[in-house]
Amino acid sequence: MNRKILSFFLCLVFAVSAQAQKIDIITWEPVANGVWKAVVGNPEAIDLLKAAESKPREEALNRMPSQDFPAVLNEVKAELIGGKTYLRVPLAKDELVYGLGLNFKRMNHTGQVMELHVDHYGGKDNGRTHAPVPFYVSSNGYGVLINSARYIKTHVGLTARTDHKNPPKEIDRNARNGWSSRPRSEEIEMMLGAPGTEIYVFAGPTMMNAVQRYNLFNGGGFIPPKWGLGFTHRTPTLFSDKDVEEEVNKFDEKGFPLSFVGLEPGWHTASYPCTFEWDPRRFPNPEEFSKKMLDRGIRLNLWLNPYVAEKASTFDEFAKVSGTHKVWNGIVPDLTLPRSNELFDSLFTKEHIDIGVSGYKIDEVDGYDVWLWPDFARFPSGLDGEQMRQVYGTLVQKMTTDMFRKKNQRTYGLVRASNAGASRFPYVIYNDYYNHKDFITALCNSSFIGVLWTPEVRASRTGEEWLRRMQTACFSPFAMLNAWADGTKPWTYPEVYEQVKDVALLRMQMIPYLYSTFAQYYFEGTPPFRAMQLTEGFFPDLDAKAEGKLDGTKNPYAEGKRKEVKDQYMMGDYLMVAPLFAGEKERKVILPKGNWYDFYTGEFVGNNQTITAKPGLDHIPVYVREGGIIPMTEAKLRAQKPGEVLPLEVRVYGKEPGAYTLYDDDGVTFDYEKGNYTQMLLSTTKDKKGKLRGKAKMIKGKKNQYGKINWVFMTK
Amino acid sequence: MNRKILSFFLCLVFAVSAQAQKIDIITWEPVANGVWKAVVGNPEAIDLLKAAESKPREEALNRMPSQDFPAVLNEVKAELIGGKTYLRVPLAKDELVYGLGLNFKRMNHTGQVMELHVDHYGGKDNGRTHAPVPFYVSSNGYGVLINSARYIKTHVGLTARTDHKNPPKEIDRNARNGWSSRPRSEEIEMMLGAPGTEIYVFAGPTMMNAVQRYNLFNGGGFIPPKWGLGFTHRTPTLFSDKDVEEEVNKFDEKGFPLSFVGLEPGWHTASYPCTFEWDPRRFPNPEEFSKKMLDRGIRLNLWLNPYVAEKASTFDEFAKVSGTHKVWNGIVPDLTLPRSNELFDSLFTKEHIDIGVSGYKIDEVDGYDVWLWPDFARFPSGLDGEQMRQVYGTLVQKMTTDMFRKKNQRTYGLVRASNAGASRFPYVIYNDYYNHKDFITALCNSSFIGVLWTPEVRASRTGEEWLRRMQTACFSPFAMLNAWADGTKPWTYPEVYEQVKDVALLRMQMIPYLYSTFAQYYFEGTPPFRAMQLTEGFFPDLDAKAEGKLDGTKNPYAEGKRKEVKDQYMMGDYLMVAPLFAGEKERKVILPKGNWYDFYTGEFVGNNQTITAKPGLDHIPVYVREGGIIPMTEAKLRAQKPGEVLPLEVRVYGKEPGAYTLYDDDGVTFDYEKGNYTQMLLSTTKDKKGKLRGKAKMIKGKKNQYGKINWVFMTK
Repeated sequence: MNRKILSFFLCLVFAVSAQAQKIDIITWEPVANGVWKAVVGNPEAIDLLKAAESKPREEALNRMPSQDFPAVLNEVKAELIGGKTYLRVPLAKDELVYGLGLNFKRMNHTGQVMELHVDHYGGKDNGRTHAPVPFYVSSNGYGVLINSARYIKTHVGLTARTDHKNPPKEIDRNARNGWSSRPRSEEIEMMLGAPGTEIYVFAGPTMMNAVQRYNLFNGGGFIPPKWGLGFTHRTPTLFSDKDVEEEVNKFDEKGFPLSFVGLEPGWHTASYPCTFEWDPRRFPNPEEFSKKMLDRGIRLNLWLNPYVAEKASTFDEFAKVSGTHKVWNGIVPDLTLPRSNELFDSLFTKEHIDIGVSGYKIDEVDGYDVWLWPDFARFPSGLDGEQMRQVYGTLVQKMTTDMFRKKNQRTYGLVRASNAGASRFPYVIYNDYYNHKDFITALCNSSFIGVLWTPEVRASRTGEEWLRRMQTACFSPFAMLNAWADGTKPWTYPEVYEQVKDVALLRMQMIPYLYSTFAQYYFEGTPPFRAMQLTEGFFPDLDAKAEGKLDGTKNPYAEGKRKEVKDQYMMGDYLMVAPLFAGEKERKVILPKGNWYDFYTGEFVGNNQTITAKPGLDHIPVYVREGGIIPMTEAKLRAQKPGEVLPLEVRVYGKEPGAYTLYDDDGVTFDYEKGNYTQMLLSTTKDKKGKLRGKAKMIKGKKNQYGKINWVFMTK
Repeated sequence: MNRKILSFFLCLVFAVSAQAQKIDIITWEPVANGVWKAVVGNPEAIDLLKAAESKPREEALNRMPSQDFPAVLNEVKAELIGGKTYLRVPLAKDELVYGLGLNFKRMNHTGQVMELHVDHYGGKDNGRTHAPVPFYVSSNGYGVLINSARYIKTHVGLTARTDHKNPPKEIDRNARNGWSSRPRSEEIEMMLGAPGTEIYVFAGPTMMNAVQRYNLFNGGGFIPPKWGLGFTHRTPTLFSDKDVEEEVNKFDEKGFPLSFVGLEPGWHTASYPCTFEWDPRRFPNPEEFSKKMLDRGIRLNLWLNPYVAEKASTFDEFAKVSGTHKVWNGIVPDLTLPRSNELFDSLFTKEHIDIGVSGYKIDEVDGYDVWLWPDFARFPSGLDGEQMRQVYGTLVQKMTTDMFRKKNQRTYGLVRASNAGASRFPYVIYNDYYNHKDFITALCNSSFIGVLWTPEVRASRTGEEWLRRMQTACFSPFAMLNAWADGTKPWTYPEVYEQVKDVALLRMQMIPYLYSTFAQYYFEGTPPFRAMQLTEGFFPDLDAKAEGKLDGTKNPYAEGKRKEVKDQYMMGDYLMVAPLFAGEKERKVILPKGNWYDFYTGEFVGNNQTITAKPGLDHIPVYVREGGIIPMTEAKLRAQKPGEVLPLEVRVYGKEPGAYTLYDDDGVTFDYEKGNYTQMLLSTTKDKKGKLRGKAKMIKGKKNQYGKINWVFMTK
């Protein structure tokens, strides 16, 4: 194109883009039960849901109550400004806004600005995180998803417009009377760098219902393989097959549970970038090694980043489908192209899956800027670096999930980036950040956005910290010790080893409950680990905005701090976990409405109140809701294998009758999707003397993998 | 526009924007001596230099040596992608890159990604800062300016492209042999969100020459009023006229210098947003108060942010020219419109300048996101929030400078945001950040980008810190104690008060040298306070890239640290300042080539070497280059008034003859621009015995404001 014609086109772009185009009518079309869609402007070819290729689980959605479109969202406004889309969503006076990505510091985001942007977490809840899912859940009982693979600047109820009808009151700061540095506005405003986007709305009536609909609409949740719920250990990066075997021996000798082992970069012939091929010096016979491990009941998980080294035998083929920029000198395959997926598929299937490898840890697909491809990178499909960054984590999850699915084999892996639409992928997010308290807040926040998160353990300053971290890892979706750099073992702090072992064995005992909790994720879309804000009977956070203490340097705008509940969470319907952190001798625990009981003793602890827990070192505080029925099993070192029959211990809490559905299946295939699973109803009723009695009844299928049932009535 | 037509236009935008448009030929046109311009695509209506409305100082530029266009920049490449401009500038193997905004942590930016974006400084050199000037100075002796009022994503020599000719070597991280997490690429790559931009190149041959050309091309530097170089104190926010008078009395009683006083928000009838009108409760008669202060030789500086309160009498008029969004409930005047400037001009002139106010402190024009207008704000001129944010600091500087200029009166103020093109504005940048060491790095970095910076003092934990901070404030462009929130006084720490007073009085003594140094800024474009990297004889930084120590949590990518010189600086041609920070008993000082002498004793300290300074508490280490001639005067409490004649003490350092031009003028008007100034050549020659003799000779004008000259030969 010569320069004159180019200039002409540029003028055109400029002329069109410089003027703001108001879109007056937003039309909401129902797309599933309780789910609506609007199309604003001209959305781009790729978006978050397209990248995930998920299909709504309509039968599950249809089991949910029908619900009207949230009327307030008829007021959503959109405008196109300079090739960008500007969205305005009403925000009510006391409305709280949850979600908006995997955040580590806070729950509600009113009064905040975030740029939703895939990135490593840098210590601030500014939108840059591993899963910056542009989905929020409103305390008024609905969810909103912006389905765009663009960075999304999001202003949640601040920076009032001059045309707002109910602007916040102007207050003189000199008078020092209620002035706020962030006066609340009546809208959530968003902007993204594309000439259009889809918007989805998910109805309630509760926040949990909105989350369920979101997960089911995205084809989730999922049920991990049973072995995935056991304990996992990642070995130091340059370990050889013999080193790994020895490590497994030590776990067995010590009587510490272990279901799967992670191999870190050293298994590749070269890493950063990677070859995906076994290094013959450290793994001379990977097939034999894998078989030996499988025979011992140990699964293997392989670390990788998807950037291809020149040393890789497949390099030339990958080079044809890769982007303009490198990551650590490795090329970056365009995973929106079938060819890239085929190349990885044939390589991974042959090199790993066919010999028994059970999963991956997919690293460095999040950021940060100095390592990843830049926004101006271009990919053969036409995507630019920004779009690719927003969806790469989703694409690698989809690709690897599909590889295992082809073999009718479930996987359960680790990934460092995700986004909307990923609810169905059997991956758990992890990162390098290591603040223990913030790890728990991330666990809470993961429940709003259809992802899972692991508060993995790597190293600690003290035995006390080690134990506190291990306790939360064992009450999380992925009970992991990640020793890739530090070479730690569960017994690194001998002074707390007994307690560490206790909680790891307790984890193994709880697999029946955990597995059924994941089945709820699959069947009903309810996240297995949940923020208190999603819990029935929880009294909500307050949008506290008191003026803070003025400090010329540290707080020159006298910003107030908001109190919210972000350090305790639900594991399934019945268990509430309230971790302690290093240095704490006690903590406050908020009990939602209803009676709550101590998990270990069965004693009543309170109802709709704040209590103080002083658990000592031995236990992580766990509480059970009234009527709680918790199916548990023996403390084994490996997770239950297909066909292996284990006894059941059913713990009953409280004084009122209850019921719980124990889910079971073969634990490794996708046959459950075809109905090959069992459900056993565990229920309690009162006998004539008012004493609880337990009853087990198969309500689907004839036989599960549990034998003798021992009912334990914990509350005296 | 109906939706069909809209869709058509959007498709067009999309069709044009989705395809990358390569621009093969970049044409460089000479625009001044040693300055070239290229136009890429279709630049927008507003840019950084247009916002500044500066005119190149051609006569000064023409005094510089002519120089060829840096040949390597013929390789600059540009591409238009999706309405954005993508630029590629070659980067040589060992080239270092300085500038790119007011950074606080590092000097050279190779291996970094920055998004140049006006913002408060958040603790990381990521491009978000008060003056994110898109100008860099290359160690290969040239400067490059991207003249766009857009956020500019800048990748400095990393993220190699697959088509690079000399890509970095692929290294296996498993082998642990020289692997780097940031392999160096051969380009600086940039992207900005507009369909075009201007690029300017400033020739060397030295980095200093490139900086000089940059400053002169932007119509700078400037000479502050003489009173601006005295000591200034900002009083607590709710002080009344009587409180201020009392404060001035105390300074006088204590014998502590004071040239101007800053009034903080409480002078307005309301603040955050502001009225710009005197509060009658605290300032019942501002005119009388101002006169009383002026009579005592004290100037007034008024704090403000430019966001207009509804309570302001001018609100309705401002509302007609303001943007869509509010800041702290105040409206935001579009300062690109003449009408906004007129409104402010008539208000400020009448309320402030006509009654003797001498300057402003313009707050909160930088950010951050939760306070400022959003990127999607729109202004009546057609600018969007992003553009306005990049230029607002420049616009307020220009507007207020012009107000004073109309009265032929110089001002010297404080501002919290600036950008390219601002070299001519008599403003110094300040902020809320308060790391003392980083304050000095900012002072160094300010010299690359045509701005000034003050390491102001507010509060301290100890007397030692108080003294160390005061020492650097007194060796900076703006010697300020900012007590707005903390209510501190110079004597807050009595144990160090004598030393604090000493350095403040030394500051007053040094005004002749400082004033002449600023004259060099105006006449030659040389920054008054300079990074060592701009200094003749300085041995350059190294682009050290050693692998760092692996730490699974704190440094998982084994990032190495780069050593650079960022805590010592030049004040003018002769003086080198090497501050100590709280807790330090000694420090290393790097002496460039040439002999260096202790400022206080005149003793030789070294040449082209690193020495250890152990100054004790009394002094801030200051060194003088061989042949240094430092004109000083009496230690007065006020800066020299027009017509006031003071004696001169000329200190001579070293053993070799030298020369220095003492500049002088009336100190308050712009008459120097018409040639109404004097220059006295101070020189030393050796007599027959080889002893130095001093000589003073007027080389321009007949008489300056200095009387008796006392030559002091410091080096024995």
